[in-house]
Amino acid sequence: MSLPIKTAIVGASGYSGEELARLLLGHPGVELAAVTSRQYAGQTLGQVFPRHANDPRCRNLRFSEPKVELLGHAAQVVFLALPHGVAAEFAGPLLDLGCKVIDLSADFRLKSSSVYREFYGQEHPAPALLQKAVYGLPERYRDEIKKGALIASPGCYPTSILLPVLPLVEAKLVKSDGIIADSLSGVSGAGRKVALEFLFGECNESMRPYGIPRHRHLSEIEEQLCLTAGRSVVVQFSPHLIPVNRGILTTLYLSPVKHFASETEMAALQNQVAQCYQKAYGNEPFVRLLEGKALPDTKNVTGTNMIEIAWRLDARTGRLIVMSAIDNIIKGASGQAVQSMNILCGFPETAGLI
Amino acid sequence: MSLPIKTAIVGASGYSGEELARLLLGHPGVELAAVTSRQYAGQTLGQVFPRHANDPRCRNLRFSEPKVELLGHAAQVVFLALPHGVAAEFAGPLLDLGCKVIDLSADFRLKSSSVYREFYGQEHPAPALLQKAVYGLPERYRDEIKKGALIASPGCYPTSILLPVLPLVEAKLVKSDGIIADSLSGVSGAGRKVALEFLFGECNESMRPYGIPRHRHLSEIEEQLCLTAGRSVVVQFSPHLIPVNRGILTTLYLSPVKHFASETEMAALQNQVAQCYQKAYGNEPFVRLLEGKALPDTKNVTGTNMIEIAWRLDARTGRLIVMSAIDNIIKGASGQAVQSMNILCGFPETAGLI
Amino acid sequence: MSLPIKTAIVGASGYSGEELARLLLGHPGVELAAVTSRQYAGQTLGQVFPRHANDPRCRNLRFSEPKVELLGHAAQVVFLALPHGVAAEFAGPLLDLGCKVIDLSADFRLKSSSVYREFYGQEHPAPALLQKAVYGLPERYRDEIKKGALIASPGCYPTSILLPVLPLVEAKLVKSDGIIADSLSGVSGAGRKVALEFLFGECNESMRPYGIPRHRHLSEIEEQLCLTAGRSVVVQFSPHLIPVNRGILTTLYLSPVKHFASETEMAALQNQVAQCYQKAYGNEPFVRLLEGKALPDTKNVTGTNMIEIAWRLDARTGRLIVMSAIDNIIKGASGQAVQSMNILCGFPETAGLI
Amino acid sequence: MSLPIKTAIVGASGYSGEELARLLLGHPGVELAAVTSRQYAGQTLGQVFPRHANDPRCRNLRFSEPKVELLGHAAQVVFLALPHGVAAEFAGPLLDLGCKVIDLSADFRLKSSSVYREFYGQEHPAPALLQKAVYGLPERYRDEIKKGALIASPGCYPTSILLPVLPLVEAKLVKSDGIIADSLSGVSGAGRKVALEFLFGECNESMRPYGIPRHRHLSEIEEQLCLTAGRSVVVQFSPHLIPVNRGILTTLYLSPVKHFASETEMAALQNQVAQCYQKAYGNEPFVRLLEGKALPDTKNVTGTNMIEIAWRLDARTGRLIVMSAIDNIIKGASGQAVQSMNILCGFPETAGLI
Repeated sequence: MSLPIKTAIVGASGYSGEELARLLLGHPGVELAAVTSRQYAGQTLGQVFPRHANDPRCRNLRFSEPKVELLGHAAQVVFLALPHGVAAEFAGPLLDLGCKVIDLSADFRLKSSSVYREFYGQEHPAPALLQKAVYGLPERYRDEIKKGALIASPGCYPTSILLPVLPLVEAKLVKSDGIIADSLSGVSGAGRKVALEFLFGECNESMRPYGIPRHRHLSEIEEQLCLTAGRSVVVQFSPHLIPVNRGILTTLYLSPVKHFASETEMAALQNQVAQCYQKAYGNEPFVRLLEGKALPDTKNVTGTNMIEIAWRLDARTGRLIVMSAIDNIIKGASGQAVQSMNILCGFPETAGLI
Repeated sequence: MSLPIKTAIVGASGYSGEELARLLLGHPGVELAAVTSRQYAGQTLGQVFPRHANDPRCRNLRFSEPKVELLGHAAQVVFLALPHGVAAEFAGPLLDLGCKVIDLSADFRLKSSSVYREFYGQEHPAPALLQKAVYGLPERYRDEIKKGALIASPGCYPTSILLPVLPLVEAKLVKSDGIIADSLSGVSGAGRKVALEFLFGECNESMRPYGIPRHRHLSEIEEQLCLTAGRSVVVQFSPHLIPVNRGILTTLYLSPVKHFASETEMAALQNQVAQCYQKAYGNEPFVRLLEGKALPDTKNVTGTNMIEIAWRLDARTGRLIVMSAIDNIIKGASGQAVQSMNILCGFPETAGLI
Repeated sequence: MSLPIKTAIVGASGYSGEELARLLLGHPGVELAAVTSRQYAGQTLGQVFPRHANDPRCRNLRFSEPKVELLGHAAQVVFLALPHGVAAEFAGPLLDLGCKVIDLSADFRLKSSSVYREFYGQEHPAPALLQKAVYGLPERYRDEIKKGALIASPGCYPTSILLPVLPLVEAKLVKSDGIIADSLSGVSGAGRKVALEFLFGECNESMRPYGIPRHRHLSEIEEQLCLTAGRSVVVQFSPHLIPVNRGILTTLYLSPVKHFASETEMAALQNQVAQCYQKAYGNEPFVRLLEGKALPDTKNVTGTNMIEIAWRLDARTGRLIVMSAIDNIIKGASGQAVQSMNILCGFPETAGLI
Repeated sequence: MSLPIKTAIVGASGYSGEELARLLLGHPGVELAAVTSRQYAGQTLGQVFPRHANDPRCRNLRFSEPKVELLGHAAQVVFLALPHGVAAEFAGPLLDLGCKVIDLSADFRLKSSSVYREFYGQEHPAPALLQKAVYGLPERYRDEIKKGALIASPGCYPTSILLPVLPLVEAKLVKSDGIIADSLSGVSGAGRKVALEFLFGECNESMRPYGIPRHRHLSEIEEQLCLTAGRSVVVQFSPHLIPVNRGILTTLYLSPVKHFASETEMAALQNQVAQCYQKAYGNEPFVRLLEGKALPDTKNVTGTNMIEIAWRLDARTGRLIVMSAIDNIIKGASGQAVQSMNILCGFPETAGLI
């Protein structure tokens, strides 16, 4: 049995960081060697997250100030769970020290620094690294992740949208333009941000859209679609805030390339869509293609790294409706990042995730 | 001061019936003279709804078996809060006895009995009454309601969709085809139905689509749009179940008739949409047109008869996004029915509703 | 018909202030002439509370800086919805200007400034007014409120505890010592305070005690019990935070003065308790004495000014268990304050409250 | 490496059964060889629990009719997740076939068949087995469980009450009479029972007591206390239903044997209580003794097999307040049953549980 791989989390005090710590502590092949947090430096993991108090696996694990040198010594794989803009400052120095870096922020998800500027309102802090980064969607970029050094783990909304859409666009079954993604997110999606609008009394018994019509996640959604379609793509994306802790439910409105006016045409298209998904995901451990009358439900994926996908052809409107459900903090963030780490480090892809 | 108008509720033991009873008990111009329920016949209103126990306004009000003759004697206005198919059996006889009838079921919302058969899977029980019925959307059919005898109060989803869409279609600002309505409903929308899928543990921390792609409410949505557009219309409608008690949030994806590529065109269209809504609803007591950055939030309408409407033009996609929020049991059912009653009986339209 | 009485709310931007504004806007005998808020000065009520946007009853009502002179001119009755310590600064000057003052803070609930110091950790800012203030529990101090000028509206927890307990102590049916009150509160009880612990993700799917064993509300609970019992009283009080917006549920553990070992003794005590409550509350419009097997449920009182009370004798333990439910923001704060105003101003006690 | 131990679950379609299946599927030392359910016989685990659809670990696991012979062949350890009264019918025959039986129902938790009759309203179906059964509270009866064949896994409320109370009673630090346990439970505690009172709309935004003053779980609580105290004990127990999926929070009101009027006495008692808990649970993997200002919160234990315990001495009332939090379905049911299985089978006690 080989030595465990040493890992660290920079910025471990948010919801994604906490979940990442939980997953790494339970992972059979790694050790969580360091966690950093400016706010909580000096405190143990258990003091900040009561769920880990007295946990023998992390009794001596204290938050430290984030220092690149120390991190480079302590860990072979470093996860960045930092705000965008800040993550990029850590990535380069850590790569120079020979670490593998898995970034959960938006900093390396785009190839284009000008799109970054347009959507994030600031210059990219490390544009030279953009071409080096691999978009960490394992079901799509497994080979690239394996060879990568800097993994840009996808956003939660993009994960829930791209996994269902990409195979259909690639197989030219649906048009790449006119795509609408209507998404619902649990409140943990806003992070652990202390703001009036996220108080219990402002969210409970509330349903509301936000960020309409131009959410930042659009940039990576469109870039990935563009790469697959081979042409520029514009997507309509509407996020909504829903009073649950965890989960994203996305409903996609797509236009099949072929019309399906007759029953025969419809049956043929049904087959093609089914085969397309089967080919793309039939052997994927974390994709659940729903059968029969089943539709996605976030309660069936929360706490797991699974994505549920179901679809319906609507002969009345000529559209293909695709629905997906994920846990925004696991498959949409920390779980997917661990999945990438497993690929990167040669672990079984499901290690520590089921 | 005139005598109060006598009212009755047939089938008062569901959520809409309960809310209707609450509204009528507090209404300054009416008396709630009778409530019926097969299941609870013999019990007082307060025994079935603890909220009304000891309420002096209904201490002696007992549920009775629903008998047309007695209802005809007891009440001048009869509300039917019954399942579809059953409501139609009461309407005709009550009208014959001279009552005004306000039906909260789907039985008289359509003009076409064949569409009814297609969507409700049974023959219409009283097709002769379909032409006589008025679709009880007060902001649209105020004059017809005033003269009506049989009011078909709209469904909750249709209310949340038609109020925002109809003025735009009528003004020919948006195309009547290709409309997508993505709606989120609180669990009370399923009624007080005792079924596994509506248990707390099955709904809480859950978000899920259902009835995709052909929900029954599509029939009245499309018929009303068709009447306004002057041509047949097909709508894409996707309902979702969300863990809140009350509320519907609808996000509508519409295509403006005019392109708005330039900033000037966009500004012009902004003006036209704003004026269209202002003209349609500027003086409506129960429509709140949101301004500035505000977006609808169900928590701002629950417990009220208001609908909130906001909209955004998206220059990137060329679409108009319209969002609305209502309380599904009030504006979407019992409140709107009382609003119709106010019109019918000559009360101020807001009586008993604010 | 007489002119409406002019009212003002100082500190109207919290949950109690918002609810108070809603109640006063709908009250048939008063006008809401002024609302103040340092934070929101200059904005309309509708801008701060979207629920009131476009409301014709308050279209021109803007938050102003809280200035005593202006308030004294604008209003005959002034409600203080301010933090403790701050409220006391306004009360004296407003009384001097001839206003009636209804204070929702803790500042005037105690007779003893030393108990205030002990529990609130500061000197009382206006000790001279303590004897002048009336404890605004209408079911108990109706006559005093009628003649009062400064009403100290009770805390939410104390309301849920004192209403069930006081009649039993007064009738010497239960011992005044050894009382235990175990209370559950919705999150609105913490006010609109922006703090990590009240974020949706920290409260949802959480149940937790807090402030054990010495919550500030103990001081007024014990003082009121002491006044009734004629001797000093110590109470055990344990509050808990529960993921609902509204409501307090209290379970009280009391020791009957008489033993009830035999069935005859038990039946006799049952009778005495029933008569005691019937005498105290049989004609109270806002007290619902539950009958038969019914037990309190906050969902039956939220949105109302009612308190539900039920009780059980337990022959096995020799205890009397009493349970109550209120809406913490209405009967526990703003509704009860309006009830006091109704008494003070000679309105029917239920005006604007049902 | 030895062969996995074969396990079966009888009555696996409720919430406890589902959680048990999840735990056993993830357990490193066992195989889940059979699941039974009259209602779902013939369907796969994944069809009934969408969370397990496509799970390769149970792709071929189908619910079967519960037949003792087949179960005896299929499994070495059989879990009974059946209603009380039914479980007892299976236990004897399975024991005769040489299986170890872990019963999650109430059937074998009592030593006395007459107490069973009193609280469960029926004759015990297998009284001869009562003396043979071991009460499966691992922290208390580890040695007995190791040697047992029939384990009666404790109820959820009793677990949350007995673990904090037993060490104090045993050490004679608190009186065994006069104990009050006030408990709050999530709705999953009611099982997957389809009844009006457990609909989302009846539980959400609701807090309510039930089963006051004589809940069935009192019988096992009192019997266990009696065994420890060496005298008969009567407990006051008040359960409440709270709108969360998971968790029990218990607040206990205890009377220390010694008075602690002076600060010295109080400090001494503080020490004794701390040492008592440290001795009892300092090395327990599933007991978290909270330190400093921390109080239990169900959100810190849901999804885990942990119990959180905190306590406060109240010099004002002379009482000791002890608070605990567990996940009712894990530590309160399925997790604790797996913990017993680990002891019984010689696995590390935490296997499959962290």
